[in-house]
Amino acid sequence: MKMVIMAGGQGTRFWPLSRRDRPKQFLNVLGEKSLFQLTVERLKEIVETKDIFVICSEQYVPLVLSQAPEIGEGQIIVEPAPRNTAACIGLAAVWLSSRFPHEMMGVFPSDHLIMDTAEFRKVTAAAGMLAERGYLVTFGIKPEFPSTGYGYLEQGAIVDSRSDKEAFQVARFTEKPDRKTAEEFFTSGHYFWNSGMFVWSLSSILEEIRTHMPGLSLILDKLGDCEIWTEKEKNIFRSAESLSIDYGVMEKSSRVVMVPCDLKWSDVGDWNAVAEIQSGVFQDNSPGGSALQIDSRNCFVHSSGNKKIALVGVNDLILVETEDSILVCSRNKSQDVGKIVQILKKENPELV
Amino acid sequence: MKMVIMAGGQGTRFWPLSRRDRPKQFLNVLGEKSLFQLTVERLKEIVETKDIFVICSEQYVPLVLSQAPEIGEGQIIVEPAPRNTAACIGLAAVWLSSRFPHEMMGVFPSDHLIMDTAEFRKVTAAAGMLAERGYLVTFGIKPEFPSTGYGYLEQGAIVDSRSDKEAFQVARFTEKPDRKTAEEFFTSGHYFWNSGMFVWSLSSILEEIRTHMPGLSLILDKLGDCEIWTEKEKNIFRSAESLSIDYGVMEKSSRVVMVPCDLKWSDVGDWNAVAEIQSGVFQDNSPGGSALQIDSRNCFVHSSGNKKIALVGVNDLILVETEDSILVCSRNKSQDVGKIVQILKKENPELV
Repeated sequence: MKMVIMAGGQGTRFWPLSRRDRPKQFLNVLGEKSLFQLTVERLKEIVETKDIFVICSEQYVPLVLSQAPEIGEGQIIVEPAPRNTAACIGLAAVWLSSRFPHEMMGVFPSDHLIMDTAEFRKVTAAAGMLAERGYLVTFGIKPEFPSTGYGYLEQGAIVDSRSDKEAFQVARFTEKPDRKTAEEFFTSGHYFWNSGMFVWSLSSILEEIRTHMPGLSLILDKLGDCEIWTEKEKNIFRSAESLSIDYGVMEKSSRVVMVPCDLKWSDVGDWNAVAEIQSGVFQDNSPGGSALQIDSRNCFVHSSGNKKIALVGVNDLILVETEDSILVCSRNKSQDVGKIVQILKKENPELV
Repeated sequence: MKMVIMAGGQGTRFWPLSRRDRPKQFLNVLGEKSLFQLTVERLKEIVETKDIFVICSEQYVPLVLSQAPEIGEGQIIVEPAPRNTAACIGLAAVWLSSRFPHEMMGVFPSDHLIMDTAEFRKVTAAAGMLAERGYLVTFGIKPEFPSTGYGYLEQGAIVDSRSDKEAFQVARFTEKPDRKTAEEFFTSGHYFWNSGMFVWSLSSILEEIRTHMPGLSLILDKLGDCEIWTEKEKNIFRSAESLSIDYGVMEKSSRVVMVPCDLKWSDVGDWNAVAEIQSGVFQDNSPGGSALQIDSRNCFVHSSGNKKIALVGVNDLILVETEDSILVCSRNKSQDVGKIVQILKKENPELV
């Protein structure tokens, strides 16, 4: 199986740590290693390093090479422009297909956390067996709480998985639900988080793109296996419709199956997610680092380490300090950090 | 009248801005000028610069000279050791008395704010007239709210002030009251905040020290008008009892009168006081400076100006950033900042 790490994202919710030239997946928000590095490590437990590929924009190639020097330049697929996951995955599939026509392909975001890596290995192996039989396999994460921030997969009829992992058809894809619906999904036990991790054969995914996204398929045919993109090829790729693989293929294809799994997974969506992960992982309810705390609870501090930080009489705060900026954010508002970035793009573009 | 500014204080509540070698009175927490500089300016509107004296420890002489270069070195009275206000005032009185035996003396803290300086001039003039008749005059501030942080003066019988300002005997001195008592004081209209500002004649205060603090009086006699303190004189001064002038003299003397006044006064006791003053002065409920604010209210920011500061979804916070430290404090807990300093004295003495 060839593993593709999608590392093109440009998240803004980790400001001030995340920047245009240093997006979330390359930050070490969870410890010494970046989310991208943790993703590479996870896949190295399943395949040989030579079978791990990274797709990202030109701009991030140096970051990939410096953070994962074991990945050769020949394993990096350069995306000429960001065009969402359908075009990204299509491009990676065409690129791999020209080199390894009969292989399975796993696709993984570079900025998620999986704490149960043993379970991840087992699920990926089961998914590989399903993929060899022509299925498009998606990982359905067992919900840990009634999240309104994730999309859901409704479990359909059982499929013979031929392994110790169960597999199901997907009865329905649902976008981020409202609170009430999320609670219904959670208690029903038949809904799973849509994690954006996939396993399929190269031929299956390219066939399904041809069937459900013929426009993208034509574009991919024109590009073939170009490695150096001239302006002409870049423009061809830019003409691709910007669609997610869920919208473009998964919701339409009859070959989709889901493997439910409990991976201790998080998409590490914002600073509050980091705070929650750290307090869980480290069994510490005050992940304030070296901050002095007086009469303060549930605060999370991420700092450059250059300044003494003191908290007095404050609760449920996130404090992030970098060389040039300080963010103070309520833990339940950390999804609004992107609004700061929107303002700064106009007022202080050097800070985003 | 000779004006004495007491500039020896070592407040800890303005950490991280205040430090051992840069206490509150020399900080510009309220704008471009320090509280000490504002005090000098206020007195220059009443007397000539040559009649303004500063009493402080050796350590702060360079700060005095740099912040108020118009004050000559000959106008600085060096306190050999901190021994509270009775010894400080006694020393200043002896020192002045040897030079200007028949003068009036005004005593003013260096770290208070008075916004109504016109009223301050009038009250000081009235106090001067009372002082010439032998009274020890204290300024009673009309309370603006039922503070539990200030001492109170209870208004006694009226005294003929021979000016357009009323004067009263002080029926009682009260330390910081509890909430209920403070509310009673506030609504009664007969209680005034004890501001620690005094006017008297040099001979009157020295007589009253002789009567009520004979031990201090003997020490002052031995020191005379020494200008250079040898270790011997320093040790004599160090043997003085550490008492406030209120305890030592004012609560006992029958010559005390109070002039009630409404000066828009604050002792600027902590960061929250600064936040309140700034929002009042600048008619701005969000004195967050240049901080970017999303969904945030009543936050106060004091920063070095070197970092962009962003607040998201937070209320009633104080954020202070300096070269080496960051404080995040709930506005109603800013009196606890001193606890941080106590911890740092042990763990990071270089930061206090």
